[in-house]
Amino acid sequence: MKVITRIAEMQKQIIQERNNQKSIGFVPTMGYLHEGHMSLLKRARQENDIVVLSVFVNPLQFGPSEDLDAYPRDFEHDKKVAEDCEVDYFFYPDEDEMFPSTPSVKVIVQDRTEVLCGRSRPGHFDGVATVLTKLFNIVFPDRAYFGMKDAQQVAVVEGLIHNFHFPIKLVAAETVREADGLAKSSRNVNLLPEERKQAPALYESLKLAEHMINEGVRNPERIISSMAQHISRQTSGIIDYIEIYSYPDLKPLTQIQGKIIIALAVKFSRARLIDNIIVTVNE
Amino acid sequence: MKVITRIAEMQKQIIQERNNQKSIGFVPTMGYLHEGHMSLLKRARQENDIVVLSVFVNPLQFGPSEDLDAYPRDFEHDKKVAEDCEVDYFFYPDEDEMFPSTPSVKVIVQDRTEVLCGRSRPGHFDGVATVLTKLFNIVFPDRAYFGMKDAQQVAVVEGLIHNFHFPIKLVAAETVREADGLAKSSRNVNLLPEERKQAPALYESLKLAEHMINEGVRNPERIISSMAQHISRQTSGIIDYIEIYSYPDLKPLTQIQGKIIIALAVKFSRARLIDNIIVTVNE
Repeated sequence: MKVITRIAEMQKQIIQERNNQKSIGFVPTMGYLHEGHMSLLKRARQENDIVVLSVFVNPLQFGPSEDLDAYPRDFEHDKKVAEDCEVDYFFYPDEDEMFPSTPSVKVIVQDRTEVLCGRSRPGHFDGVATVLTKLFNIVFPDRAYFGMKDAQQVAVVEGLIHNFHFPIKLVAAETVREADGLAKSSRNVNLLPEERKQAPALYESLKLAEHMINEGVRNPERIISSMAQHISRQTSGIIDYIEIYSYPDLKPLTQIQGKIIIALAVKFSRARLIDNIIVTVNE
Repeated sequence: MKVITRIAEMQKQIIQERNNQKSIGFVPTMGYLHEGHMSLLKRARQENDIVVLSVFVNPLQFGPSEDLDAYPRDFEHDKKVAEDCEVDYFFYPDEDEMFPSTPSVKVIVQDRTEVLCGRSRPGHFDGVATVLTKLFNIVFPDRAYFGMKDAQQVAVVEGLIHNFHFPIKLVAAETVREADGLAKSSRNVNLLPEERKQAPALYESLKLAEHMINEGVRNPERIISSMAQHISRQTSGIIDYIEIYSYPDLKPLTQIQGKIIIALAVKFSRARLIDNIIVTVNE
């Protein structure tokens, strides 16, 4: 495995690989790798000749009051995980390399951002789309892998790839969970022990929603209200949002029908967690 | 020469050419080709295995009160010019192909836009950068050719390529002029006969500025004032701007020094013309 910190060097290596007709699988991350990332890397390993992992904590996608400084980092751990997953190139640029000065251009996401994390985190998806535009041109992958835990991110990246004609196939992989149901996340490490015990209530509330739908409930408000009650009772977290939309368009629904996303964000004392499930109702 | 109207087909052809190790030269235009474009095509022909010309009148780069509808179009003429210049692929998508719906992402230019045409045409360079991001991913060129008549566009595209790491070399070619000095432009055809006679005064004013600098004048305001006087006396056009900046940074100057751009825009009854010269003063 090669660790590469320079953009020009990464591009040079990729051009060589592509000239040798190698297919490239790319897993862009902010590091502190967990089993969610590992499942993406394993899938990329199966489907491509070359696997590129990037670790870059992207300042553009953090708001001024968000947890950029608290975001966990552990290069040695990430390197070990990458080696175990048989990554070929570990791209690890620092902030000066990626943003040596105020960029003269940025990408704005005009769609799907007025809901879910987009509303709570203004500018967040602009930051995601801008850094991915850069990374896509540096790594030039055939396939890019994202976890469905960030379902809105998957929808936004789908729009980015489609609208800017990146010749890249987006692969969205299922959320990986702890034994108790908590979605794997780099931010889980910032939960207090008490909060960690409460946190499975998030996924429980999603399963509760699914159960209600299976029982015939079609009113989104009724489902959201039951979920909120469950989370409030079981945790000390503050609900940021619980929302239900069509997926992947993320349009509001008056009635549960078709492919939908049920998504939530809950703020604990030092970590804001998100989770979601996709459910399809055809009747 | 192949005329291609579909994005997917253009990408497919380019992938084949690149797999055969062919270098790609790209001349993006809005059509109504003149000798300025021809000089770009000839240079692209000399420097690359494959030459791609695109003709697309990009609605995103026109303001609501601008001349999108009046912008001249002539497919048969453009096709003939392209054939004469030995173009391999003539990419000619319509608006539905390029923008089938409101795009979910766009590129914003944050730098160099508060001066020159950027100030007179808010959003213009966002539109240019957005459509070029699309075209670069469709045509995937090694070299992209632009005329220095749009010097600010050259500077903005340089920023786009650099910031988003497109593996593309920007080639900026000198402005091609009529015998009387008027810069070649698709918009010249919209000049009234009387205005066409007056229009060489624009370039004359730039030569006047150069002459004043050679004579030792270093005060930008004095030069601008003489240029304005010349244009007002010799034409019926309305001066949109006459400005002097450092180049390519486009920063204001109190004193003429280093590499500078002297640029102007003048509105005639049905055509707004631009022109500029780059001058280097080292002392």
